[in-house]
Amino acid sequence: MTASPTQHDTFVIERRLTSPPTRVFAAFADQKKKARWFGCVEGWEVAEHTLDFRVGGREVWRGGPPGHAPHRNDTVYHDIVPDERIVWSYAMQVGGRRISVSLATLELSALGTGTHMRFIEQGVYLDGRDGLAERERGTKDLLDNLERALREEG
Amino acid sequence: MTASPTQHDTFVIERRLTSPPTRVFAAFADQKKKARWFGCVEGWEVAEHTLDFRVGGREVWRGGPPGHAPHRNDTVYHDIVPDERIVWSYAMQVGGRRISVSLATLELSALGTGTHMRFIEQGVYLDGRDGLAERERGTKDLLDNLERALREEG
Repeated sequence: MTASPTQHDTFVIERRLTSPPTRVFAAFADQKKKARWFGCVEGWEVAEHTLDFRVGGREVWRGGPPGHAPHRNDTVYHDIVPDERIVWSYAMQVGGRRISVSLATLELSALGTGTHMRFIEQGVYLDGRDGLAERERGTKDLLDNLERALREEG
Repeated sequence: MTASPTQHDTFVIERRLTSPPTRVFAAFADQKKKARWFGCVEGWEVAEHTLDFRVGGREVWRGGPPGHAPHRNDTVYHDIVPDERIVWSYAMQVGGRRISVSLATLELSALGTGTHMRFIEQGVYLDGRDGLAERERGTKDLLDNLERALREEG
């Protein structure tokens, strides 16, 4: 078994959201609320989503495009400050192969009646895959979904 | 409860070790071998060290200088390639307060009869503490301990 070179990189995404921090936080902390935006890719099916949202708790998400390589995320929560901060790490697999491990920090602060969100992902990309650009784009798509779900919530 | 600003940073340590990758890997994978170097700070006492070395497995280390703020590390292993690569994340607490969460990558490759080690730590330092310089120095001290333990092993 041979490990290929790894790449380490960081990206930062900042957003202004119209919902207050409490509602943004709930969209990460509550499995039913999170399921409305997380992993919602058109044409994908969700096979499993379990969330034990507490320090030391785990989350598993499995799914993907039917007939293609399944995706799997295994997450552990490391730090939670209600309505303000969440730190978690997650490993991503595609087709049973681990492609990355990431450390994510979400920071929320009140901005008028809304929220200033800062998301920082520090990652290691395994087996020589240049995953950074794709991951940043995928994360932006996820956060677009989050904003849409919050707007629909009203 | 108010979350203070966080700092994100990365450091890299490279070493040439005289022991082959198999023995260096074992010093991380085997609890008894790891206990010979990890957390071995003069005057410190170890209160707990449990290691479940497998993907998804956890490690707990508790200890510190008697009469002072206890240290605690909670680790999760994300990726293991025997003798070549380990990726883990860990949260560190001092005096019951979480001060950082880190993503660590250890890469080992044969170099002559020894090992080229590359250690990359990507971390988030919580609550405004400038922990990076201290963490890098502490990690170098740990790796000095590791080298000493490997030499004593013969």
